[in-house]
Amino acid sequence: MTAVPIPNLPNALARIRAIVGDKGCVTDPEAMAPFLIDDRKKFLGKTPMIVRPATTLEVAAVVELCAQHGLAIVPQGGNTGLCGAQIPSPAGAEIVLNLSRLNRVRDVDPINYTITAEAGCILAEVQAKAAEVDRLMPLSLAAEGSCEIGGNLSTNAGGINVLRYGMARDLVLGIEVVLPDGRIWDGLRRLRKDNTGYDLKHLFIGAEGTLGIITAAVLKLFPRPREVVTALLAVPDLDSALALMVQAREASGDKLTAFELMERICFDFALRHVPGTHDPLNQAYDHYVLLELSSSETGGLRATMESILESAIEHGTVIDGTIAANDAQAKALWRIRETQNDAQKPEGGSIKHDVSVPVGQVPEFIRRASAFVTTLIPGARPVAFGHVGDGNVHFNVSQPIGADRARFLARWPDMNHGIHDIAHALGGSFSAEHGVGVLKRDELVRFKSPVEIELMRRIKAAIDPQGLMNPGKVLEP
Amino acid sequence: MTAVPIPNLPNALARIRAIVGDKGCVTDPEAMAPFLIDDRKKFLGKTPMIVRPATTLEVAAVVELCAQHGLAIVPQGGNTGLCGAQIPSPAGAEIVLNLSRLNRVRDVDPINYTITAEAGCILAEVQAKAAEVDRLMPLSLAAEGSCEIGGNLSTNAGGINVLRYGMARDLVLGIEVVLPDGRIWDGLRRLRKDNTGYDLKHLFIGAEGTLGIITAAVLKLFPRPREVVTALLAVPDLDSALALMVQAREASGDKLTAFELMERICFDFALRHVPGTHDPLNQAYDHYVLLELSSSETGGLRATMESILESAIEHGTVIDGTIAANDAQAKALWRIRETQNDAQKPEGGSIKHDVSVPVGQVPEFIRRASAFVTTLIPGARPVAFGHVGDGNVHFNVSQPIGADRARFLARWPDMNHGIHDIAHALGGSFSAEHGVGVLKRDELVRFKSPVEIELMRRIKAAIDPQGLMNPGKVLEP
Repeated sequence: MTAVPIPNLPNALARIRAIVGDKGCVTDPEAMAPFLIDDRKKFLGKTPMIVRPATTLEVAAVVELCAQHGLAIVPQGGNTGLCGAQIPSPAGAEIVLNLSRLNRVRDVDPINYTITAEAGCILAEVQAKAAEVDRLMPLSLAAEGSCEIGGNLSTNAGGINVLRYGMARDLVLGIEVVLPDGRIWDGLRRLRKDNTGYDLKHLFIGAEGTLGIITAAVLKLFPRPREVVTALLAVPDLDSALALMVQAREASGDKLTAFELMERICFDFALRHVPGTHDPLNQAYDHYVLLELSSSETGGLRATMESILESAIEHGTVIDGTIAANDAQAKALWRIRETQNDAQKPEGGSIKHDVSVPVGQVPEFIRRASAFVTTLIPGARPVAFGHVGDGNVHFNVSQPIGADRARFLARWPDMNHGIHDIAHALGGSFSAEHGVGVLKRDELVRFKSPVEIELMRRIKAAIDPQGLMNPGKVLEP
Repeated sequence: MTAVPIPNLPNALARIRAIVGDKGCVTDPEAMAPFLIDDRKKFLGKTPMIVRPATTLEVAAVVELCAQHGLAIVPQGGNTGLCGAQIPSPAGAEIVLNLSRLNRVRDVDPINYTITAEAGCILAEVQAKAAEVDRLMPLSLAAEGSCEIGGNLSTNAGGINVLRYGMARDLVLGIEVVLPDGRIWDGLRRLRKDNTGYDLKHLFIGAEGTLGIITAAVLKLFPRPREVVTALLAVPDLDSALALMVQAREASGDKLTAFELMERICFDFALRHVPGTHDPLNQAYDHYVLLELSSSETGGLRATMESILESAIEHGTVIDGTIAANDAQAKALWRIRETQNDAQKPEGGSIKHDVSVPVGQVPEFIRRASAFVTTLIPGARPVAFGHVGDGNVHFNVSQPIGADRARFLARWPDMNHGIHDIAHALGGSFSAEHGVGVLKRDELVRFKSPVEIELMRRIKAAIDPQGLMNPGKVLEP
């Protein structure tokens, strides 16, 4: 491979166009715009070209050509990432390699409980394909209508079913990767057990496109739930929520598929700003848990939920609650949880966190973090909610009522700094499920040991020696 | 770090003794002997010293010293591995670093559902510690009374609960590793979600000690089953076994924790050679399934099993069977499965395989492999059994009745070659759960793409540039 200096860019772009054709190239500034900014509009990038290959072979040819030209690449899926990994740098030195056209489901196998999908498949469509053969693809998250499998794996997406089914990583049996030199690694295995050398797939999963481009994956499927029972329960305090989680997991035979904590302010915001919501209980409480059981067995799940509830009320870990009587009621309960981000918007600026701690530390984390918030910015309103069953709290902070939005948001780094310190002190992480990207690159250096950073750098250098794969993401160049 | 040539060995050994003390060094040939041969007596090694550190700091100091002296290290746990990864080379150029004294359980946390155990903890003891706080540590395999956690993780052990709980790898939240230069990477996280850079733990898990030494791990726990129901079912053919598996998984709400196939010959051998066994059914059948449901819920599991059985009989996928009425009966059924290796011994030489295929290909694999066996060696007797729910068949071959044992065993490589080819052609693997070690190093090269081998080599070079960690294992030096 001969590296040609970038000055030869027009030539490189012409050769890329020859590989993917006109419909695989976007260079019109207006057409490029939506690919160059993220949903929260925190990252705005530039690029000479958005390249949209339609096959793995096209991806490989483009990457090989980029390696020859020394041209850097930002891989991109549905552009729903929250940390900026999928947006090129403002300098515009990288092409964007968007994988949305690589979107075939190659295989669905209900007996092997697997689905083989290309990187550009939209998550909801993969879920639907699995459902067609009566199987569950359990990865589920707010962006599922537009996020894509390649991005889900590159960021090791989490979501609402992690408690029972694990992270995106845990659902993968095999992957196909285009390496930084353009060669294809076909690791598309469909095996539950395969102990043959280093587990390379886990290196590419969660690497945010810095080691290569995931072009397809074999994902595990599960029996489809036939019964789902949802309840909204008021708990007297955070420790009771934890006790309830432990008890529900045991008493349900591990059918607990969601355990979401919400504080009262989550309800206040939703009731105020989300049309069609109403308070499911007759009075207000400080803390709530949205609990869901599911099973592929039929019959008896409601009785299980009732017995969990009875016992919890007896032990004082639940003080009020309602079990959804039907799908519509369950959806209404979930709506309060799922619209949390939207419900916060009319309340002004909101500073976000995506932290995790060991499950037992969740109450202590919320207490310490809430105290910190009001010390740092008196009147600021902590909005804690999230997947407590996984120790994952989306600890958001809404601005004080009537405060200046921009001035409040300017405190974002200070707020993050303090909250991440608290999580870290409790054995936690500054990024539970959103990844690192550009947004949390400094935090990576702040919290990881030099040994760990060095290991990552050695791996990066070993697999992408030219440093052309998503440069400046996760690790500083 | 200054590399000193090995001629300085006596000096290096003296310095190691200064670190770990006399009780941490074994040099007496008789005392060393059991550390230098594997259970099946296929690998016999030599070493100047067995080093037995008692703490992670001692491990780190020994490894750092070895790096300075250019002295290679073979990490070893309970010495139960089947592929020779834990045995030094016959040349005796490596020290053996045995981790059995590093055996404290550092933490058990029933709320976080985790246990933190050092590498030298015996698997059965970790299971027992978890049970003390009413939790399940699901990793379970034949060697659990003597195998150790460090070895379990270094070989990514499988076992009988993989169908429901995954491989050893899937049970790990964090690890502590002594790197080849003696530095400690503290990756002992207790988090369910932590998306902060490359997932390094999965690189060390399953690397068979070639990238560093796992000294401790945080393992996931689960609710402990309160009810277990076991059944032995006769199925008319292999395809019916598959259909039964799919149906049982769905109808039980994913409570299927074991699904083990056995052919008639397994029963014949066990009844003939294992004291106290008897045929659980009134007549002989060609194929059997040992099926186990478990749940942390109480009540109703037997009814679920009965309804699965009823429906299977109706569909013709089961033709006879028995459900264990109590623990003793369940143990008797498991005894036939668990004594398979012993039961084969009196039948003469046995050539072993540990292959996996996609679950739907299990019947075709067994048909093709059985046909191959009798073509290669007329009269040879295929003994197929194993974790069919995971696509993992322990396809063993007993010698023809009255044949010469040594002459039969001399065909081991030919037999392996052909059987591995058949598995590979069906999308399978030549090593499902036993790893590579020395035994299957050539098969690794035969079946992996050059791209994959090169990726492994680059990673090895990046993390262990001196090549001192378990040299010659997994990858050729």
